[in-house]
Amino acid sequence: MIHHDGSALYVPDRAPVLGGTTDVYVRASTDAGVDRVWARWTFDREPRFVAATDARPLAARTGERWFRVRLPLRNPVSRYRFLLDGPGGYRWLTAAGVFPHDVGDDTDFRIVCGHAPPDWAADATVYLIFPDRFARSAAAADRQLPDWAVARDWDHPVSGDGPDRPREIYGGDLDGIADRLDHIASVGADTICLTPFFPAPANHRYCPTTFDRVDPLLGGDAALRRLADAAHSRGMRVIGDLTTNHTGDRHDWFRDALAGRHRDLYYFDDDLEFGYETWVSVRRMPKLNWTSAELRRRFLDGPDSVVRRWLEAGLDGWRIDVANTTGRRIAEDNTHEVARGILAAMTRSRPDALLLAENAHDATGDLDAGGWHGTMNYAGFTRPVWTWLTTEPLPFLGVPVGVPRLPATAMVATMRAFAARMSWRSLTTSWSLLDSHDTPRFRTLAGNSAGLVEVGVGLMATLPGTPMVYYGDEVGLSGTWPEDGRRTIPWHDRTRWDHRLLAVYTDLLALRRKQSALRHGGLRFLHVGTDRLAFLRETADERLLVLAARRPVSEPLRLPGIGAADNIYGGAPDLAPGDPLSGDGPTFQVWRLAD
Amino acid sequence: MIHHDGSALYVPDRAPVLGGTTDVYVRASTDAGVDRVWARWTFDREPRFVAATDARPLAARTGERWFRVRLPLRNPVSRYRFLLDGPGGYRWLTAAGVFPHDVGDDTDFRIVCGHAPPDWAADATVYLIFPDRFARSAAAADRQLPDWAVARDWDHPVSGDGPDRPREIYGGDLDGIADRLDHIASVGADTICLTPFFPAPANHRYCPTTFDRVDPLLGGDAALRRLADAAHSRGMRVIGDLTTNHTGDRHDWFRDALAGRHRDLYYFDDDLEFGYETWVSVRRMPKLNWTSAELRRRFLDGPDSVVRRWLEAGLDGWRIDVANTTGRRIAEDNTHEVARGILAAMTRSRPDALLLAENAHDATGDLDAGGWHGTMNYAGFTRPVWTWLTTEPLPFLGVPVGVPRLPATAMVATMRAFAARMSWRSLTTSWSLLDSHDTPRFRTLAGNSAGLVEVGVGLMATLPGTPMVYYGDEVGLSGTWPEDGRRTIPWHDRTRWDHRLLAVYTDLLALRRKQSALRHGGLRFLHVGTDRLAFLRETADERLLVLAARRPVSEPLRLPGIGAADNIYGGAPDLAPGDPLSGDGPTFQVWRLAD
Repeated sequence: MIHHDGSALYVPDRAPVLGGTTDVYVRASTDAGVDRVWARWTFDREPRFVAATDARPLAARTGERWFRVRLPLRNPVSRYRFLLDGPGGYRWLTAAGVFPHDVGDDTDFRIVCGHAPPDWAADATVYLIFPDRFARSAAAADRQLPDWAVARDWDHPVSGDGPDRPREIYGGDLDGIADRLDHIASVGADTICLTPFFPAPANHRYCPTTFDRVDPLLGGDAALRRLADAAHSRGMRVIGDLTTNHTGDRHDWFRDALAGRHRDLYYFDDDLEFGYETWVSVRRMPKLNWTSAELRRRFLDGPDSVVRRWLEAGLDGWRIDVANTTGRRIAEDNTHEVARGILAAMTRSRPDALLLAENAHDATGDLDAGGWHGTMNYAGFTRPVWTWLTTEPLPFLGVPVGVPRLPATAMVATMRAFAARMSWRSLTTSWSLLDSHDTPRFRTLAGNSAGLVEVGVGLMATLPGTPMVYYGDEVGLSGTWPEDGRRTIPWHDRTRWDHRLLAVYTDLLALRRKQSALRHGGLRFLHVGTDRLAFLRETADERLLVLAARRPVSEPLRLPGIGAADNIYGGAPDLAPGDPLSGDGPTFQVWRLAD
Repeated sequence: MIHHDGSALYVPDRAPVLGGTTDVYVRASTDAGVDRVWARWTFDREPRFVAATDARPLAARTGERWFRVRLPLRNPVSRYRFLLDGPGGYRWLTAAGVFPHDVGDDTDFRIVCGHAPPDWAADATVYLIFPDRFARSAAAADRQLPDWAVARDWDHPVSGDGPDRPREIYGGDLDGIADRLDHIASVGADTICLTPFFPAPANHRYCPTTFDRVDPLLGGDAALRRLADAAHSRGMRVIGDLTTNHTGDRHDWFRDALAGRHRDLYYFDDDLEFGYETWVSVRRMPKLNWTSAELRRRFLDGPDSVVRRWLEAGLDGWRIDVANTTGRRIAEDNTHEVARGILAAMTRSRPDALLLAENAHDATGDLDAGGWHGTMNYAGFTRPVWTWLTTEPLPFLGVPVGVPRLPATAMVATMRAFAARMSWRSLTTSWSLLDSHDTPRFRTLAGNSAGLVEVGVGLMATLPGTPMVYYGDEVGLSGTWPEDGRRTIPWHDRTRWDHRLLAVYTDLLALRRKQSALRHGGLRFLHVGTDRLAFLRETADERLLVLAARRPVSEPLRLPGIGAADNIYGGAPDLAPGDPLSGDGPTFQVWRLAD
């Protein structure tokens, strides 16, 4: 065993300062053949080596050797790796693993100075709400719908792909959410993320007509204030969803631009399909031009700017829609600078605000750049978990081949491939989601298997990353494609809830809240096979062993070096030293190691 | 077999245009289980998929299926990969290989529009000269040395690490080079790269006192003009070496700055070790500040600027010293922009100029950004070749563990790790060097084994990348550390030359010039083992099989699908269909396949 990661066990300083130094630790089994260790770091991209010294931190255990390096922090992102030498030859340790040959610096470990996520983010559990479908308040029944809307009863099936798809309005609203904070809190979430709440001629509201007010259908500005106040009064937070890449084509700004005023806010060009640039050929979503000083002023300048006024009005952060393409067009590539500008504006109103990037692709190149604190981790969590737990090849975010069923080795390889190219703080601040309003429901993917769903929720609750529950997953909502999954929660008929599943969510998220190692511990995989994997989450004070299996495996699993342990989730027996783990499956188990 | 790379076989359009489209081809054996193919590409980082159609290009062979995708080129760097589906499940094909699970987009294939390297670069062979040590002209004997210099006879051993190390002057000069163009051309090189020629108080001249004139010790400006003219008259080229990161501390600009004029050219700060920023703690190398408008003006503006005046005076390009750290300091990271500025200035004087980045670290993140055309490929060529062919753990560029001896699998894994993160055009424009003035001599690393040296030269001559010969390697110069290797060529006593080695260089570089596939072909590895590897270089017209072995291997090597072939280098027998390759070693062999 040779290990390092960005958790406090190996990087104790949680607020590293640019221009200072920080201690980093590596640990190795005494039988791993490691005699000498250096860190390789870079100063303005010049590589340097610094020798490690032996160390004996509190967390050190019998049969291990620990090494410490005092690492200078000369750039906002300090990249480093370890060079290990011994009788078996030299090896590099990077965030992608141990290599007996040279590899590029893209998977070097990273320490980021400044622009830190708010302290609360590392302990958060997020609950994502599509406001039209979560819950109605008493006031909802009295609202006049706009002409385009097709009013739906709460129990009406979602129409799916027809022309009514964006027009169906079920009448969920912000006060409906405020009324159900007990439910959200009882599941274990403390941070509500709302998909857009600005007025728009579509139920998803990703084509806003203004950024100046909350949609009256959702209760208007006052309802947002009530929701934020209610949430804050119980220590919960509320995050909004902002389309920085585009507006709707009926947005005030776009109408003005069509009329000849401030055309620089968009990209007008007669050679383009619609005469202006859009988000992926969607005519109704004209793309915003971040090279425009006026656009930046409107979004960023002063407490009344788009970014700031809703923080002033109660929001605790923003999810940024299609952050990957915001500020990018042809040769323009201003995303990092735009992200830094958004964060700087936010922190003027709320020093502890969170800025989260939606990215259905590979976000790693955009994190750790002083802007986005994290991403919705579709690539590094959702999709790999799906490949392990899927029962059928459902579609996923535009990939033309349905999700394949792969071994746990593949799942972990993908998780590591993405995690290795971001800092630990970006990884833990990114959202581990099993599904969202842009995917089928996870329960459906898992073939409605209670056992498989539990395994998925367990991974979400125990791996590094912020759990994100998509509203209604916890009571068993299903759906085979994104729109189909945007169903309503049957508050009026709880016999339709999956109460066993609700207990699974509640218990696993409570476990995460209780066990600090699940939120702040390092991660070491002990076994990764086809149908089963086991890993440790470790802090200096607590060591948790996690076992996940998607089906029964005939051989019991023997993990060297695991001593006595109390089962704290899943119902398996406590472990005595040398006990193998049973081959049950599907199963999800957590033990606390005694020593 | 499933394959794609950036060569013309798979990307026929060699001058892709931003905003246009280009055809890309994938090939697969009919037994590879590939039924359907898509390309995934991105538009402003939004992923899209486009289905491939069956294709039958001229290069298609029996037992293969080819697929074509028309790829839109919407950004200056278009990243793409292939999704393959078939009975065995889905796979991704990226520049790093075939993956049955998701991987990040860092190894996606890349097509770069604009800022292309000059046409001549892909066919070039470079000869790197440390001017003080290559050859004296008749005029050299009459020159008055500066006070600091220690005059050395041409045969005097290099002193190595003592105080005289930077002071030893052997008296090589530019006319000495001009006098030996026959030799350089006969070896097979056509592009001379000179380490710095500006005056400096050290034999390496990386601490210049001015950029305004050629060191009189080297013959002055007129000698450079004579060398350039002589080279050009025989179709050869000359590239200079520019320190854009720093000057010497006796440079005119720095003296002025110390006197209070244009201090903004440097970074003065009383808190720094020397009162100003330097290159890695070398007091004599004050770091230049590229945020200074005056610095940019001096380097870039007008035909008399530093970058342009020496192109106007005859140079065909620049090697940029420590390009990795140029324009970077703490939070400043302007390297890409500086590189683009340098290239733009260069092309104003010479549209076909080459801009090459020295980078002893990982250059991949700085290539394909519109500036540097390529790098000195220490990371992706030199060091992996060393790990395969070393006989002792010599030091390499500051790594505190000597170069280990590793299997060919490790060498190829490292080569691929770096090649996969740059475009094909950056890879082929980068210099494949076996050693340089900053490393021990390759011959010494290879234990003076004629066979091992031949294998190294063979890899340099047959893999993608521009061969770079370090002066004197071809006649057998040795040296166990960088300064020790900066020896003189014994022109006056050719009995001390290794004439067998000279023939190896001459023949292998001639082979490369003759066989277009070695310069323009795709690359497919057919076998990579511990002591032996085999690969194909292929164009539509020519298929070459290369075998390299570092020692004898008992089993003959059978390569399915290889038919009749004529041996064109190395002396092994021609091949009949089904013939195994012999287990000799060390050996380097090249065959031309008949079909």
